Amino acid sequence: MSDETHTFLESLGLRAQQVESTLTKLLNSDLRDDEIARPNHLLAAMRHGVLNGGKRLRPFLVLESTALLGGPDDAALRVAAALECLHCYSLIHDDLPSMDDDDLRRGLPTVHKAFDEATAILAGDTLLTMAFDIIAAPQTQLPDRQKTELILALARAAGLGGMAGGQALDLLAETTDPDEAAIIRLQAMKTGALLRFACESGAIIASASPTDRQQLKRFGEAIGLAFQLADDLLDVTSDSQALGKAAGKDAAAGKATLVALHGTQWAREQLSGLVEEANRLLEPFGERAAILKAAAEFIANREN
Amino acid sequence: MSDETHTFLESLGLRAQQVESTLTKLLNSDLRDDEIARPNHLLAAMRHGVLNGGKRLRPFLVLESTALLGGPDDAALRVAAALECLHCYSLIHDDLPSMDDDDLRRGLPTVHKAFDEATAILAGDTLLTMAFDIIAAPQTQLPDRQKTELILALARAAGLGGMAGGQALDLLAETTDPDEAAIIRLQAMKTGALLRFACESGAIIASASPTDRQQLKRFGEAIGLAFQLADDLLDVTSDSQALGKAAGKDAAAGKATLVALHGTQWAREQLSGLVEEANRLLEPFGERAAILKAAAEFIANREN
Repeated sequence: MSDETHTFLESLGLRAQQVESTLTKLLNSDLRDDEIARPNHLLAAMRHGVLNGGKRLRPFLVLESTALLGGPDDAALRVAAALECLHCYSLIHDDLPSMDDDDLRRGLPTVHKAFDEATAILAGDTLLTMAFDIIAAPQTQLPDRQKTELILALARAAGLGGMAGGQALDLLAETTDPDEAAIIRLQAMKTGALLRFACESGAIIASASPTDRQQLKRFGEAIGLAFQLADDLLDVTSDSQALGKAAGKDAAAGKATLVALHGTQWAREQLSGLVEEANRLLEPFGERAAILKAAAEFIANREN
Repeated sequence: MSDETHTFLESLGLRAQQVESTLTKLLNSDLRDDEIARPNHLLAAMRHGVLNGGKRLRPFLVLESTALLGGPDDAALRVAAALECLHCYSLIHDDLPSMDDDDLRRGLPTVHKAFDEATAILAGDTLLTMAFDIIAAPQTQLPDRQKTELILALARAAGLGGMAGGQALDLLAETTDPDEAAIIRLQAMKTGALLRFACESGAIIASASPTDRQQLKRFGEAIGLAFQLADDLLDVTSDSQALGKAAGKDAAAGKATLVALHGTQWAREQLSGLVEEANRLLEPFGERAAILKAAAEFIANREN
């Protein structure tokens, strides 16, 4: 392991601890000031779906893109937690029997397996709702203009033209055999939109210039493409134990992926190109961007 | 039919037309400025779940509470549409096989029947996300402070301590036999929270005084209780055709309701009391509140 990789993994781990602690508070008693009736089994299902030792990659990107541009760490942490709640909602719903029908997630039973289907649907719904609650809440100390911008950007990343729309197209893809352009588009929506938001949100939190914001957004797009390509590659080259979820599912489902179309060698070359592009986009920020460059490298070459 | 009822129904119908037209635009091509890839079947499922001739009671309350306090009609219309999207998401998910398992809604096949389960889940997810998009978007011409307040209030009304939490408790109620206090609490969360938001949102949109806002909020709570009581009453006194959905379901499921505990006569007396309380809460607003008083009357005595 290179020194850079080592430093990056250490930072990722430290950031994950911060995020974990924020999420634990939010999913405990910190969310509301007033007394509310808590449906405890629903809260338990939400905790199962969120507090499961994820890498917290999206939160890491929110935190580091904010830090790069000199924004406040406290606000970034809350936005990072909101994004992770939203990401985990999507995993809970994607795993449902009528969607991808997965029993395992990060080596643990999925929420509908550990609880039941109705509770899993509601846990996802509540986490999605909570993401907007967290950003809008007074505890997120940002001007209202920035909160509104973050909420709008997050809703668009998650909605019809983003993640949920991409998942709908992806479910169709098993039967409709989309062409290359359609695959790229659906992946940019399904996976890319949230990663792009993660990077762009730092620019919003830090009130960055439009140029810097645009640069971070394009960086997010590049690593979004890399993330999905690495995912497709892992699906054919890894096994379920290493992944902590079912491997070989796409091939078994006859799902069209870029790796299935062009092969693993092509995919590895593309990944190198995307890492180069990501590095180039960060050049204007100089040395301070080293950690985000390492993140791009990590995303392209990760092993699970 | 009394003159007042006639006038009220006319207003309700006119407001519903305005809301319908806003929702139709939002669920067509008006939501985003930039070109996006639209998953057409998902959009069709969203339209099926929203553009189905509902009474648009919650939007009506947003619009009339805003008008009462002199707030802008355009902004109110967008908040009303956002709330209706969120309400319809909850109906789509509640109807799912793993939840209430309903085949009919307003006399039409439910979304998972007309499409499929995965599409219904995603249509609900996307409508929930869209609710926050609509309020945060630049087209909603309100100061950012008010947008943030609306988003926070809506997220809390819809989340763990509100609608979704109430639905979770309600699903448990079929097996846990809750006492009267627990029934009242779960209904206040499941049904009451959104109706309260509908009334309170007018005060936020109009930048009303804290006193006026509090009064509208309490009015919303009173009609929330009345709405649920009337619903439980209809479940035992009406038939499926009149309701446009399955009747007698609660009794068949052995679900504890206040009507099951205390009988229909008691429920009718309670409803009269709630209408009186609603009227009393609106006294400070004088003649201008006549339409909201008629709304309370309508909610308590509706036939479907």
